[in-house]
Amino acid sequence: MMDRAEFLELDHRDPLAEVRDRFKLEEGLVYLDGNSLGAMPRATPRRVAEVVEREWGRGLIGSWEGAGWLEAPERLGDKVGRLIGAQPGEVLVSDSTSVNLYKLVSAGLEMRPGRDVVLTERSNFPTDLYIAGGVAAHRPKVDLRIVDREDLAAALTDQVAVLLMTHVDYLTGYIHDAERLTRAAHQAGVVVVWDLSHSAGAVPVDLGAWGADLATGCTYKYLCGGPGSPAYIYVAAGLQEQAMSPLRGWFGHARPFDFDSRYEPAAGVRRFLAGTPPVLALAGLESALDLWLEVDMAAARQKSTALTEAFIKLVSQRCPAAAVLSPLDPERRGSQVSLRYPGAEAAIAAMAARGVVGDFRPPDAMRFGFSALYTRFVDVWDAVDVLVEVIGAAD
Amino acid sequence: MMDRAEFLELDHRDPLAEVRDRFKLEEGLVYLDGNSLGAMPRATPRRVAEVVEREWGRGLIGSWEGAGWLEAPERLGDKVGRLIGAQPGEVLVSDSTSVNLYKLVSAGLEMRPGRDVVLTERSNFPTDLYIAGGVAAHRPKVDLRIVDREDLAAALTDQVAVLLMTHVDYLTGYIHDAERLTRAAHQAGVVVVWDLSHSAGAVPVDLGAWGADLATGCTYKYLCGGPGSPAYIYVAAGLQEQAMSPLRGWFGHARPFDFDSRYEPAAGVRRFLAGTPPVLALAGLESALDLWLEVDMAAARQKSTALTEAFIKLVSQRCPAAAVLSPLDPERRGSQVSLRYPGAEAAIAAMAARGVVGDFRPPDAMRFGFSALYTRFVDVWDAVDVLVEVIGAAD
Repeated sequence: MMDRAEFLELDHRDPLAEVRDRFKLEEGLVYLDGNSLGAMPRATPRRVAEVVEREWGRGLIGSWEGAGWLEAPERLGDKVGRLIGAQPGEVLVSDSTSVNLYKLVSAGLEMRPGRDVVLTERSNFPTDLYIAGGVAAHRPKVDLRIVDREDLAAALTDQVAVLLMTHVDYLTGYIHDAERLTRAAHQAGVVVVWDLSHSAGAVPVDLGAWGADLATGCTYKYLCGGPGSPAYIYVAAGLQEQAMSPLRGWFGHARPFDFDSRYEPAAGVRRFLAGTPPVLALAGLESALDLWLEVDMAAARQKSTALTEAFIKLVSQRCPAAAVLSPLDPERRGSQVSLRYPGAEAAIAAMAARGVVGDFRPPDAMRFGFSALYTRFVDVWDAVDVLVEVIGAAD
Repeated sequence: MMDRAEFLELDHRDPLAEVRDRFKLEEGLVYLDGNSLGAMPRATPRRVAEVVEREWGRGLIGSWEGAGWLEAPERLGDKVGRLIGAQPGEVLVSDSTSVNLYKLVSAGLEMRPGRDVVLTERSNFPTDLYIAGGVAAHRPKVDLRIVDREDLAAALTDQVAVLLMTHVDYLTGYIHDAERLTRAAHQAGVVVVWDLSHSAGAVPVDLGAWGADLATGCTYKYLCGGPGSPAYIYVAAGLQEQAMSPLRGWFGHARPFDFDSRYEPAAGVRRFLAGTPPVLALAGLESALDLWLEVDMAAARQKSTALTEAFIKLVSQRCPAAAVLSPLDPERRGSQVSLRYPGAEAAIAAMAARGVVGDFRPPDAMRFGFSALYTRFVDVWDAVDVLVEVIGAAD
């Protein structure tokens, strides 16, 4: 059996330990819900205040050019791109993940005329299913085909235009083999849309190596951009001429300030912008991205794997009443561990009352997210202590 | 001839004069571009900082319930609703104007099966034209019909599903007779989508009295919500059961936290939410809305009309080289005055260099916006002084 001192020792040896000091976290709080809403970087309030008071308050309309607001969607996009294996000019920060999914599923369908199926898996995140259903609802011939995970490969027929996948399962943390799936889809002539909401900042993402087509993801989880911070959208360089957004807003026009009545899409990924970018929200996100760019992603993945491994080991030893729902193979597991337990909802509430914050997902899952940036090994120990207190120890 | 002292006297008697103190504006600046980006309320930085540092930084995930983030789109929507003659539960704050236009044009088409025309006017704001074109592009039978303003009434045939109008012309400030147009459209069985971007906070808007169907508008102009602050969307109570958003995101689901794989739209206007709301951007907007709710809208309109009247009078007397492009009838004129002048772009730049900020719109328009909240009568005098300096006086 391990003890708490060993976990403190792991923190002592953690090369990322000092990154935690860059975050604001209350003393005594064990925050294991960064997979839902990331913690706040200490640099963020000042950056947001600067944008509000100096750039808006004093710079006013001049800040669109003078403070770089016009280029912010691409500037932040390129920063996200460095975290997910994209090239400069392939990523944009814009709108929400849901809105971006709509753009991409629609664009993918247009890229495959004559094919009328959008394929996805049953356990995909609900908004992905809803949005794809919405795209299909307005196209009489288009069919949204939802299959079980194990049937995906066989379902990649020449009727399929778009394969819509979430890379890391929100419920279990299961990581799809994105490179293999992308290859299989391409062999069947299918365009792939990846939802990276539970991936970026949590597990390795290399869109270039995957040969990815289209992707989007949220920034308020592991990336710590703030509640509801804008999402990003990726269009591979080679597809940017053919991919068209259905949401033809003025910020995606080639020359928005010509106020031309005819739509002419901007070159590159910028055509996927719709309305005026949310400058205050972008400011919060940019400060988090700047922090991320200082972090060695390989070290972050190594630490997150060690955290989830330790959590699984302790839970298995000390609290077998909670069944591990996440993959036991660390290669296939994201930066979270989900437990199945009949009284999950009450248990999560009782743990939160004791300062350990995870979350409940129906019907019976307790989810715990481990951010490599600010989760300590001792947090893992203390969380399991509280879990045992709440749902009982092994005999 | 008037003189500067008279304008100072007008400020002295202005019942809204002290509202200006609620804004941060640099000494010596004459800011006449609040129709593009409104000035910053003094209360905003503190409100934003509270949301960042206390609600996010300390409250973390618990703030979705504990700090009212979940209900913010409806809470802010109801505040906007009080400014535009809507009932509680008819307005939501969400996404950008462009994205909301897409939702509404699409919803309007679905409400009129068998009709395949979206009708709009040539001088509509470009993003309205682009977005409507995007909706039409993915519906083989749908036709976007763009006509001249004077031909609108005749074009309201039984083929038309949706009439898409911007209430106040962005270029000239011309105010459409919304009640009359809505009535004419309804007589032809047409659903009307109003873009109120240059209306709310500028001119009287009474969606209830108009018998309006659907509307949206931006909040970063006269409403002073901050750069790129989220837009609002209005669906008349009587249409909320039939109107469906094409962007079926999880926040518009009846029970988003059930994570049900089947989409079931929320009751009421909430179904028009798509992704996770941008909490920091909402905070900036809410502080501005709270200020607006203290202002007597009739007094604001009266002041804004007096400001634009005075500006037109002075320009006509002192600087006839600049032709007034805006309606001379104050009843038909928004809270802006546009001037036509061949060297408009250079003149706007030269005025800005002298501390008077308006904006240029191609090919030859100089736009000046007059916010009743923070524009002084003496600003009007000083602006015309600088205009005369830049483009020359009358003989």
